[in-house]
Amino acid sequence: MTRILEVRKNILKKNDMLAGDLRDKFQSAGVCVVDLVSSPGAGKTELLEKTLEKLSDKGYEVAALVGDLETENDANRLARSGVPVRQIETHGICHLEAEMVDNHLRDWDLSKLDFLFIENVGNLVCPSSYDLGEDFRVVFLAVTEGEDKPLKYPTIYNSSDVAIITKIDLAEAVEFDRQTAVESIHSVRPGIPILEVSAKKEIGMDEWISFLESKVNKKATVAEV
Amino acid sequence: MTRILEVRKNILKKNDMLAGDLRDKFQSAGVCVVDLVSSPGAGKTELLEKTLEKLSDKGYEVAALVGDLETENDANRLARSGVPVRQIETHGICHLEAEMVDNHLRDWDLSKLDFLFIENVGNLVCPSSYDLGEDFRVVFLAVTEGEDKPLKYPTIYNSSDVAIITKIDLAEAVEFDRQTAVESIHSVRPGIPILEVSAKKEIGMDEWISFLESKVNKKATVAEV
Repeated sequence: MTRILEVRKNILKKNDMLAGDLRDKFQSAGVCVVDLVSSPGAGKTELLEKTLEKLSDKGYEVAALVGDLETENDANRLARSGVPVRQIETHGICHLEAEMVDNHLRDWDLSKLDFLFIENVGNLVCPSSYDLGEDFRVVFLAVTEGEDKPLKYPTIYNSSDVAIITKIDLAEAVEFDRQTAVESIHSVRPGIPILEVSAKKEIGMDEWISFLESKVNKKATVAEV
Repeated sequence: MTRILEVRKNILKKNDMLAGDLRDKFQSAGVCVVDLVSSPGAGKTELLEKTLEKLSDKGYEVAALVGDLETENDANRLARSGVPVRQIETHGICHLEAEMVDNHLRDWDLSKLDFLFIENVGNLVCPSSYDLGEDFRVVFLAVTEGEDKPLKYPTIYNSSDVAIITKIDLAEAVEFDRQTAVESIHSVRPGIPILEVSAKKEIGMDEWISFLESKVNKKATVAEV
Protein backbone atom coordinates (compact mmCIF):
# COMPACT_ATOMS: atom_id res chain seq x y z
CA MET A 1 0.00 0.00 0.00
CA THR A 2 2.84 2.43 0.85
CA ARG A 3 4.34 1.74 -2.56
CA ILE A 4 1.06 2.52 -4.33
CA LEU A 5 0.64 5.78 -2.44
CA GLU A 6 4.22 6.73 -3.24
CA VAL A 7 3.75 6.07 -6.97
CA ARG A 8 0.49 8.04 -6.95
CA LYS A 9 2.19 10.92 -5.13
CA ASN A 10 4.93 10.97 -7.76
CA ILE A 11 2.42 10.99 -10.63
CA LEU A 12 0.54 13.92 -9.07
CA LYS A 13 3.79 15.78 -8.32
CA LYS A 14 4.92 15.38 -11.93
CA ASN A 15 1.48 16.54 -13.13
CA ASP A 16 1.56 19.58 -10.83
CA MET A 17 4.97 20.64 -12.17
CA LEU A 18 3.86 20.32 -15.78
CA ALA A 19 0.58 22.11 -14.99
CA GLY A 20 2.63 24.96 -13.50
CA ASP A 21 4.60 25.26 -16.74
CA LEU A 22 1.35 25.18 -18.73
CA ARG A 23 -0.12 27.93 -16.53
CA ASP A 24 2.93 30.12 -17.22
CA LYS A 25 2.56 29.41 -20.94
CA PHE A 26 -1.16 30.28 -20.91
CA GLN A 27 -0.52 33.45 -18.95
CA SER A 28 2.19 34.76 -21.23
CA ALA A 29 0.01 33.96 -24.24
CA GLY A 30 -2.85 35.90 -22.59
CA VAL A 31 -5.38 33.09 -23.05
CA CYS A 32 -8.05 32.38 -20.44
CA VAL A 33 -8.24 28.62 -19.88
CA VAL A 34 -11.42 27.02 -18.53
CA ASP A 35 -11.64 23.38 -17.37
CA LEU A 36 -15.14 21.85 -17.47
CA VAL A 37 -15.81 18.89 -15.16
CA SER A 38 -18.94 16.84 -14.45
CA SER A 39 -20.42 13.36 -14.42
CA PRO A 40 -21.10 11.81 -17.84
CA GLY A 41 -24.09 13.36 -19.56
CA ALA A 42 -24.45 16.48 -17.40
CA GLY A 43 -24.44 18.62 -20.52
CA LYS A 44 -20.83 19.80 -20.89
CA THR A 45 -20.68 19.40 -24.66
CA GLU A 46 -24.03 21.05 -25.36
CA LEU A 47 -23.15 24.07 -23.18
CA LEU A 48 -19.68 24.25 -24.70
CA GLU A 49 -21.08 24.17 -28.25
CA LYS A 50 -23.33 27.16 -27.53
CA THR A 51 -20.54 28.95 -25.63
CA LEU A 52 -18.10 28.64 -28.54
CA GLU A 53 -20.73 30.00 -30.95
CA LYS A 54 -21.70 32.93 -28.74
CA LEU A 55 -18.14 33.98 -27.92
CA SER A 56 -17.18 33.70 -31.62
CA ASP A 57 -20.15 35.84 -32.58
CA LYS A 58 -18.93 38.48 -30.13
CA GLY A 59 -15.52 38.49 -31.82
CA TYR A 60 -13.54 36.41 -29.33
CA GLU A 61 -11.00 33.87 -30.57
CA VAL A 62 -11.85 30.55 -28.95
CA ALA A 63 -10.72 26.92 -29.13
CA ALA A 64 -11.46 23.68 -27.33
CA LEU A 65 -9.84 20.43 -26.29
CA VAL A 66 -12.27 17.65 -25.45
CA GLY A 67 -11.42 14.53 -23.47
CA ASP A 68 -13.14 11.16 -23.77
CA LEU A 69 -12.09 7.57 -23.22
CA GLU A 70 -13.04 6.72 -26.80
CA THR A 71 -14.69 8.34 -29.86
CA GLU A 72 -14.23 11.66 -31.59
CA ASN A 73 -17.98 12.40 -31.34
CA ASP A 74 -17.60 15.51 -29.22
CA ALA A 75 -14.87 17.07 -31.33
CA ASN A 76 -16.93 16.44 -34.47
CA ARG A 77 -19.98 17.97 -32.82
CA LEU A 78 -18.09 21.02 -31.56
CA ALA A 79 -16.30 21.50 -34.88
CA ARG A 80 -19.67 22.59 -36.31
CA SER A 81 -19.13 25.88 -34.48
CA GLY A 82 -16.23 26.53 -36.87
CA VAL A 83 -13.57 27.06 -34.18
CA PRO A 84 -10.45 24.93 -33.67
CA VAL A 85 -11.37 21.81 -31.69
CA ARG A 86 -9.24 18.80 -30.91
CA GLN A 87 -10.20 15.49 -29.29
CA ILE A 88 -8.05 13.86 -26.62
CA GLU A 89 -8.85 10.15 -26.52
CA THR A 90 -7.55 8.83 -23.21
CA HIS A 91 -8.11 5.13 -24.09
CA GLY A 92 -9.25 4.01 -20.68
CA ILE A 93 -7.69 6.70 -18.48
CA CYS A 94 -10.39 8.26 -16.33
CA HIS A 95 -9.23 11.91 -16.38
CA LEU A 96 -7.15 14.38 -18.37
CA GLU A 97 -3.57 15.10 -17.33
CA ALA A 98 -1.42 18.18 -17.97
CA GLU A 99 0.81 16.16 -20.29
CA MET A 100 -2.13 15.21 -22.55
CA VAL A 101 -3.20 18.85 -22.75
CA ASP A 102 0.35 19.96 -23.52
CA ASN A 103 0.77 17.32 -26.26
CA HIS A 104 -2.47 18.28 -27.98
CA LEU A 105 -1.94 22.02 -28.27
CA ARG A 106 1.75 22.17 -29.17
CA ASP A 107 1.15 23.40 -32.73
CA TRP A 108 -1.54 25.93 -31.76
CA ASP A 109 -0.62 29.61 -31.50
CA LEU A 110 -2.05 30.32 -28.07
CA SER A 111 -1.34 34.03 -28.29
CA LYS A 112 -4.10 34.30 -30.91
CA LEU A 113 -6.71 32.91 -28.50
CA ASP A 114 -8.87 34.69 -25.93
CA PHE A 115 -10.35 31.48 -24.49
CA LEU A 116 -9.31 27.85 -24.46
CA PHE A 117 -11.92 25.43 -23.08
CA ILE A 118 -10.91 22.00 -21.86
CA GLU A 119 -13.77 19.52 -21.54
CA ASN A 120 -12.61 16.88 -19.10
CA VAL A 121 -13.60 13.19 -19.10
CA GLY A 122 -17.07 12.72 -17.58
CA ASN A 123 -16.15 11.65 -14.05
CA LEU A 124 -16.83 13.28 -10.67
CA VAL A 125 -13.85 11.71 -8.93
CA CYS A 126 -10.53 11.38 -10.69
CA PRO A 127 -10.23 14.69 -12.61
CA SER A 128 -10.31 16.57 -9.30
CA SER A 129 -6.68 15.69 -8.51
CA TYR A 130 -5.19 16.73 -11.84
CA ASP A 131 -4.36 20.41 -12.34
CA LEU A 132 -4.33 21.25 -16.06
CA GLY A 133 -2.92 24.77 -15.68
CA GLU A 134 -6.40 26.23 -16.13
CA ASP A 135 -7.44 29.69 -14.93
CA PHE A 136 -10.54 28.22 -13.37
CA ARG A 137 -12.51 25.03 -13.12
CA VAL A 138 -16.26 24.83 -13.68
CA VAL A 139 -18.26 21.95 -12.18
CA PHE A 140 -21.67 21.03 -13.62
CA LEU A 141 -24.60 19.64 -11.66
CA ALA A 142 -27.49 18.53 -13.88
CA VAL A 143 -30.91 18.83 -12.25
CA THR A 144 -31.46 15.19 -13.29
CA GLU A 145 -28.57 13.98 -11.10
CA GLY A 146 -29.95 14.62 -7.63
CA GLU A 147 -29.29 17.45 -5.21
CA ASP A 148 -26.92 15.45 -2.98
CA LYS A 149 -24.12 14.91 -5.50
CA PRO A 150 -21.89 17.69 -4.06
CA LEU A 151 -21.96 15.93 -0.65
CA LYS A 152 -21.04 12.60 -2.23
CA TYR A 153 -18.28 13.99 -4.46
CA PRO A 154 -16.91 16.85 -2.34
CA THR A 155 -13.40 17.03 -3.80
CA ILE A 156 -14.47 17.94 -7.32
CA TYR A 157 -16.68 20.72 -5.92
CA ASN A 158 -13.96 21.85 -3.52
CA SER A 159 -11.46 22.21 -6.32
CA SER A 160 -13.85 24.13 -8.60
CA ASP A 161 -14.27 27.89 -8.90
CA VAL A 162 -17.75 28.08 -10.41
CA ALA A 163 -20.73 25.71 -10.30
CA ILE A 164 -23.31 25.54 -13.07
CA ILE A 165 -26.65 23.86 -12.53
CA THR A 166 -27.47 22.51 -16.00
CA LYS A 167 -30.62 21.26 -17.75
CA ILE A 168 -32.58 23.77 -15.65
CA ASP A 169 -35.44 23.44 -18.17
CA LEU A 170 -36.05 19.96 -16.73
CA ALA A 171 -36.20 21.21 -13.11
CA GLU A 172 -39.94 20.83 -12.81
CA ALA A 173 -40.15 17.45 -14.58
CA VAL A 174 -37.64 15.94 -12.13
CA GLU A 175 -38.96 17.85 -9.09
CA PHE A 176 -35.57 19.52 -8.64
CA ASP A 177 -35.14 21.05 -5.17
CA ARG A 178 -33.11 24.20 -5.86
CA GLN A 179 -32.59 25.19 -2.23
CA THR A 180 -31.24 21.77 -1.24
CA ALA A 181 -28.91 21.72 -4.24
CA VAL A 182 -27.54 25.19 -3.47
CA GLU A 183 -27.08 24.24 0.20
CA SER A 184 -25.26 21.05 -0.82
CA ILE A 185 -22.90 22.97 -3.09
CA HIS A 186 -22.24 25.71 -0.53
CA SER A 187 -21.71 23.25 2.32
CA VAL A 188 -18.72 21.71 0.52
CA ARG A 189 -17.55 24.89 -1.23
CA PRO A 190 -18.80 27.98 0.65
CA GLY A 191 -19.29 31.07 -1.47
CA ILE A 192 -18.76 29.48 -4.88
CA PRO A 193 -20.73 31.36 -7.58
CA ILE A 194 -23.64 29.27 -8.88
CA LEU A 195 -25.21 29.81 -12.31
CA GLU A 196 -28.37 28.14 -13.60
CA VAL A 197 -28.40 27.30 -17.27
CA SER A 198 -30.20 25.39 -19.99
CA ALA A 199 -28.09 25.41 -23.14
CA LYS A 200 -30.90 23.70 -25.03
CA LYS A 201 -33.56 26.25 -24.11
CA GLU A 202 -31.17 29.23 -24.00
CA ILE A 203 -31.80 29.95 -20.31
CA GLY A 204 -29.06 31.68 -18.30
CA MET A 205 -26.61 31.77 -21.22
CA ASP A 206 -26.20 35.56 -21.08
CA GLU A 207 -25.09 35.41 -17.44
CA TRP A 208 -22.60 32.66 -18.24
CA ILE A 209 -21.16 34.55 -21.22
CA SER A 210 -20.93 37.75 -19.13
CA PHE A 211 -19.15 35.79 -16.42
CA LEU A 212 -16.61 34.56 -18.98
CA GLU A 213 -16.14 38.04 -20.41
CA SER A 214 -15.49 39.44 -16.93
CA LYS A 215 -12.62 36.97 -16.65
CA VAL A 216 -10.81 38.15 -19.78
CA ASN A 217 -11.52 41.80 -18.99
CA LYS A 218 -10.07 41.31 -15.54
CA LYS A 219 -7.02 39.63 -17.03
CA ALA A 220 -6.60 42.43 -19.53
CA THR A 221 -6.75 45.04 -16.73
CA VAL A 222 -4.17 43.16 -14.70
CA ALA A 223 -1.90 42.88 -17.73
CA GLU A 224 -2.08 46.64 -18.35
CA VAL A 225 -1.02 47.57 -14.82
CA MET B 1 5.44 4.67 -16.83
CA THR B 2 6.44 0.98 -16.78
CA ARG B 3 6.55 1.14 -12.98
CA ILE B 4 3.05 2.63 -12.79
CA LEU B 5 1.65 -0.03 -15.10
CA GLU B 6 3.35 -2.74 -13.06
CA VAL B 7 1.92 -1.42 -9.78
CA ARG B 8 -1.55 -1.16 -11.36
CA LYS B 9 -1.23 -4.71 -12.71
CA ASN B 10 -0.35 -5.96 -9.23
CA ILE B 11 -3.32 -4.16 -7.64
CA LEU B 12 -5.70 -5.67 -10.18
CA LYS B 13 -4.14 -9.12 -9.81
CA LYS B 14 -4.55 -8.96 -6.02
CA ASN B 15 -8.16 -7.78 -6.47
CA ASP B 16 -8.91 -10.60 -8.93
CA MET B 17 -7.59 -13.21 -6.51
CA LEU B 18 -9.67 -11.84 -3.64
CA ALA B 19 -12.73 -11.55 -5.91
CA GLY B 20 -12.26 -15.21 -6.83
CA ASP B 21 -12.35 -16.15 -3.13
CA LEU B 22 -15.43 -13.98 -2.62
CA ARG B 23 -17.18 -15.66 -5.57
CA ASP B 24 -16.51 -19.08 -4.03
CA LYS B 25 -17.87 -17.82 -0.71
CA PHE B 26 -21.02 -16.39 -2.36
CA GLN B 27 -21.58 -19.59 -4.31
CA SER B 28 -21.30 -21.92 -1.34
CA ALA B 29 -23.63 -19.61 0.63
CA GLY B 30 -26.10 -19.76 -2.29
CA VAL B 31 -26.51 -15.99 -2.50
CA CYS B 32 -26.95 -14.24 -5.85
CA VAL B 33 -24.72 -11.14 -5.91
CA VAL B 34 -25.55 -8.22 -8.20
CA ASP B 35 -23.16 -5.30 -8.84
CA LEU B 36 -24.85 -2.05 -9.94
CA VAL B 37 -22.70 0.43 -11.90
CA SER B 38 -23.50 3.78 -13.53
CA SER B 39 -22.56 7.43 -13.68
CA PRO B 40 -23.53 9.54 -10.65
CA GLY B 41 -27.26 10.21 -10.52
CA ALA B 42 -28.43 7.60 -13.04
CA GLY B 43 -30.91 6.28 -10.49
CA LYS B 44 -29.15 3.31 -8.88
CA THR B 45 -30.32 4.05 -5.32
CA GLU B 46 -33.93 4.69 -6.27
CA LEU B 47 -34.15 1.48 -8.29
CA LEU B 48 -32.38 -0.46 -5.55
CA GLU B 49 -34.76 0.87 -2.88
CA LYS B 50 -37.79 -0.36 -4.84
CA THR B 51 -36.05 -3.65 -5.68
CA LEU B 52 -35.30 -4.42 -2.02
CA GLU B 53 -38.91 -3.69 -1.09
CA LYS B 54 -40.40 -5.81 -3.88
CA LEU B 55 -38.13 -8.80 -3.33
CA SER B 56 -38.77 -8.64 0.44
CA ASP B 57 -42.50 -8.56 -0.17
CA LYS B 58 -42.14 -11.71 -2.26
CA GLY B 59 -40.39 -13.44 0.63
CA TYR B 60 -36.79 -13.22 -0.54
CA GLU B 61 -34.02 -12.44 1.93
CA VAL B 62 -32.07 -9.48 0.57
CA ALA B 63 -29.28 -7.16 1.70
CA ALA B 64 -27.23 -4.33 0.19
CA LEU B 65 -23.79 -2.77 0.36
CA VAL B 66 -23.62 0.78 -1.01
CA GLY B 67 -20.44 2.55 -2.03
CA ASP B 68 -19.86 6.30 -1.99
CA LEU B 69 -16.86 8.56 -1.58
CA GLU B 70 -18.49 10.25 1.41
CA THR B 71 -21.82 10.30 3.29
CA GLU B 72 -24.08 7.55 4.58
CA ASN B 73 -27.09 9.06 2.76
CA ASP B 74 -27.74 6.04 0.57
CA ALA B 75 -27.52 3.49 3.37
CA ASN B 76 -29.90 5.60 5.47
CA ARG B 77 -32.29 5.87 2.54
CA LEU B 78 -32.17 2.14 1.75
CA ALA B 79 -32.51 1.17 5.41
CA ARG B 80 -36.11 2.39 5.20
CA SER B 81 -36.86 -0.82 3.32
CA GLY B 82 -36.11 -2.69 6.57
CA VAL B 83 -33.44 -4.99 5.09
CA PRO B 84 -29.76 -5.11 6.18
CA VAL B 85 -27.87 -2.31 4.46
CA ARG B 86 -24.31 -1.18 5.01
CA GLN B 87 -22.46 1.85 3.60
CA ILE B 88 -18.92 1.59 2.27
CA GLU B 89 -17.34 5.05 2.36
CA THR B 90 -14.31 4.96 0.06
CA HIS B 91 -12.95 8.37 1.15
CA GLY B 92 -11.76 9.47 -2.26
CA ILE B 93 -11.30 6.12 -3.99
CA CYS B 94 -13.25 6.10 -7.24
CA HIS B 95 -14.51 2.50 -7.22
CA LEU B 96 -15.22 -0.43 -4.91
CA GLU B 97 -12.64 -3.19 -4.50
CA ALA B 98 -13.12 -6.82 -3.49
CA GLU B 99 -11.31 -6.14 -0.21
CA MET B 100 -13.79 -3.41 0.78
CA VAL B 101 -16.70 -5.73 0.04
CA ASP B 102 -15.11 -8.55 2.01
CA ASN B 103 -14.42 -6.28 5.01
CA HIS B 104 -17.98 -4.99 5.14
CA LEU B 105 -19.84 -8.30 5.11
CA ARG B 106 -17.66 -10.40 7.40
CA ASP B 107 -20.23 -10.58 10.20
CA TRP B 108 -23.19 -11.24 7.90
CA ASP B 109 -24.53 -14.78 7.55
CA LEU B 110 -24.57 -14.98 3.76
CA SER B 111 -26.26 -18.38 3.74
CA LYS B 112 -29.44 -16.68 4.96
CA LEU B 113 -29.55 -14.38 1.92
CA ASP B 114 -31.09 -14.92 -1.51
CA PHE B 115 -29.73 -11.67 -2.99
CA LEU B 116 -26.91 -9.32 -2.09
CA PHE B 117 -26.84 -6.05 -4.06
CA ILE B 118 -23.67 -4.00 -4.29
CA GLU B 119 -24.18 -0.41 -5.40
CA ASN B 120 -20.85 0.76 -6.77
CA VAL B 121 -19.46 4.32 -6.68
CA GLY B 122 -21.06 6.48 -9.39
CA ASN B 123 -18.37 6.34 -12.07
CA LEU B 124 -18.43 4.97 -15.63
CA VAL B 125 -14.70 4.32 -15.79
CA CYS B 126 -12.85 2.93 -12.80
CA PRO B 127 -15.28 0.32 -11.41
CA SER B 128 -15.08 -1.60 -14.70
CA SER B 129 -11.66 -3.05 -13.83
CA TYR B 130 -12.54 -4.31 -10.34
CA ASP B 131 -14.22 -7.70 -10.06
CA LEU B 132 -16.18 -7.91 -6.80
CA GLY B 133 -17.02 -11.61 -7.05
CA GLU B 134 -20.54 -10.76 -8.24
CA ASP B 135 -22.75 -13.14 -10.22
CA PHE B 136 -23.52 -10.40 -12.69
CA ARG B 137 -23.02 -6.71 -13.25
CA VAL B 138 -25.81 -4.32 -14.24
CA VAL B 139 -25.00 -1.05 -16.00
CA PHE B 140 -27.50 1.82 -15.95
CA LEU B 141 -28.02 4.37 -18.71
CA ALA B 142 -30.34 7.21 -17.71
CA VAL B 143 -32.31 8.69 -20.61
CA THR B 144 -31.04 12.09 -19.40
CA GLU B 145 -27.40 11.16 -20.06
CA GLY B 146 -27.35 10.97 -23.84
CA GLU B 147 -27.52 7.97 -26.15
CA ASP B 148 -23.80 7.94 -26.94
CA LYS B 149 -22.49 7.12 -23.46
CA PRO B 150 -21.91 3.39 -24.24
CA LEU B 151 -19.60 4.41 -27.11
CA LYS B 152 -17.67 6.80 -24.87
CA TYR B 153 -17.37 4.39 -21.93
CA PRO B 154 -17.17 1.01 -23.69
CA THR B 155 -15.34 -0.93 -20.97
CA ILE B 156 -18.05 -0.61 -18.34
CA TYR B 157 -20.65 -1.80 -20.87
CA ASN B 158 -18.38 -4.57 -22.11
CA SER B 159 -17.91 -5.91 -18.62
CA SER B 160 -21.64 -5.80 -17.76
CA ASP B 161 -24.21 -8.57 -18.18
CA VAL B 162 -27.42 -6.55 -18.24
CA ALA B 163 -28.16 -2.93 -19.21
CA ILE B 164 -31.03 -0.96 -17.72
CA ILE B 165 -32.25 2.23 -19.33
CA THR B 166 -33.46 4.25 -16.32
CA LYS B 167 -35.70 7.28 -15.85
CA ILE B 168 -37.70 6.09 -18.86
CA ASP B 169 -40.58 8.32 -17.69
CA LEU B 170 -38.44 11.30 -18.77
CA ALA B 171 -37.80 9.90 -22.27
CA GLU B 172 -40.16 12.29 -24.00
CA ALA B 173 -39.09 15.38 -22.02
CA VAL B 174 -35.44 14.86 -23.03
CA GLU B 175 -36.24 13.67 -26.57
CA PHE B 176 -34.59 10.33 -25.85
CA ASP B 177 -33.76 8.38 -29.02
CA ARG B 178 -34.37 4.75 -28.00
CA GLN B 179 -33.11 3.17 -31.21
CA THR B 180 -29.79 5.05 -31.12
CA ALA B 181 -29.30 4.16 -27.44
CA VAL B 182 -29.97 0.46 -28.06
CA GLU B 183 -27.64 0.47 -31.08
CA SER B 184 -24.93 2.16 -28.99
CA ILE B 185 -25.24 -0.44 -26.24
CA HIS B 186 -25.29 -3.37 -28.66
CA SER B 187 -22.37 -2.06 -30.71
CA VAL B 188 -20.07 -2.27 -27.67
CA ARG B 189 -21.77 -5.30 -26.04
CA PRO B 190 -23.64 -7.33 -28.66
CA GLY B 191 -26.62 -9.29 -27.36
CA ILE B 192 -26.70 -7.83 -23.84
CA PRO B 193 -30.28 -7.88 -22.44
CA ILE B 194 -31.70 -4.36 -22.15
CA LEU B 195 -34.51 -3.44 -19.75
CA GLU B 196 -36.35 -0.11 -19.63
CA VAL B 197 -37.36 1.08 -16.19
CA SER B 198 -38.66 3.99 -14.20
CA ALA B 199 -38.44 3.19 -10.49
CA LYS B 200 -40.24 6.43 -9.68
CA LYS B 201 -43.24 5.74 -11.91
CA GLU B 202 -43.16 1.95 -11.48
CA ILE B 203 -42.53 1.25 -15.16
CA GLY B 204 -40.76 -1.97 -16.13
CA MET B 205 -40.23 -3.05 -12.52
CA ASP B 206 -42.03 -6.38 -12.97
CA GLU B 207 -39.70 -7.37 -15.83
CA TRP B 208 -36.67 -6.45 -13.70
CA ILE B 209 -37.91 -8.42 -10.70
CA SER B 210 -38.72 -11.42 -12.93
CA PHE B 211 -35.24 -11.19 -14.41
CA LEU B 212 -33.74 -11.31 -10.90
CA GLU B 213 -35.97 -14.24 -9.88
CA SER B 214 -34.89 -16.17 -12.97
CA LYS B 215 -31.30 -15.85 -11.74
CA VAL B 216 -31.93 -17.42 -8.33
CA ASN B 217 -34.20 -20.09 -9.82
CA LYS B 218 -31.52 -20.96 -12.33
CA LYS B 219 -28.93 -21.14 -9.55
CA ALA B 220 -31.22 -23.38 -7.51
CA THR B 221 -31.67 -25.72 -10.49
CA VAL B 222 -27.95 -25.92 -11.08
CA ALA B 223 -27.37 -26.65 -7.40
CA GLU B 224 -29.86 -29.52 -7.48
CA VAL B 225 -28.20 -31.28 -10.42
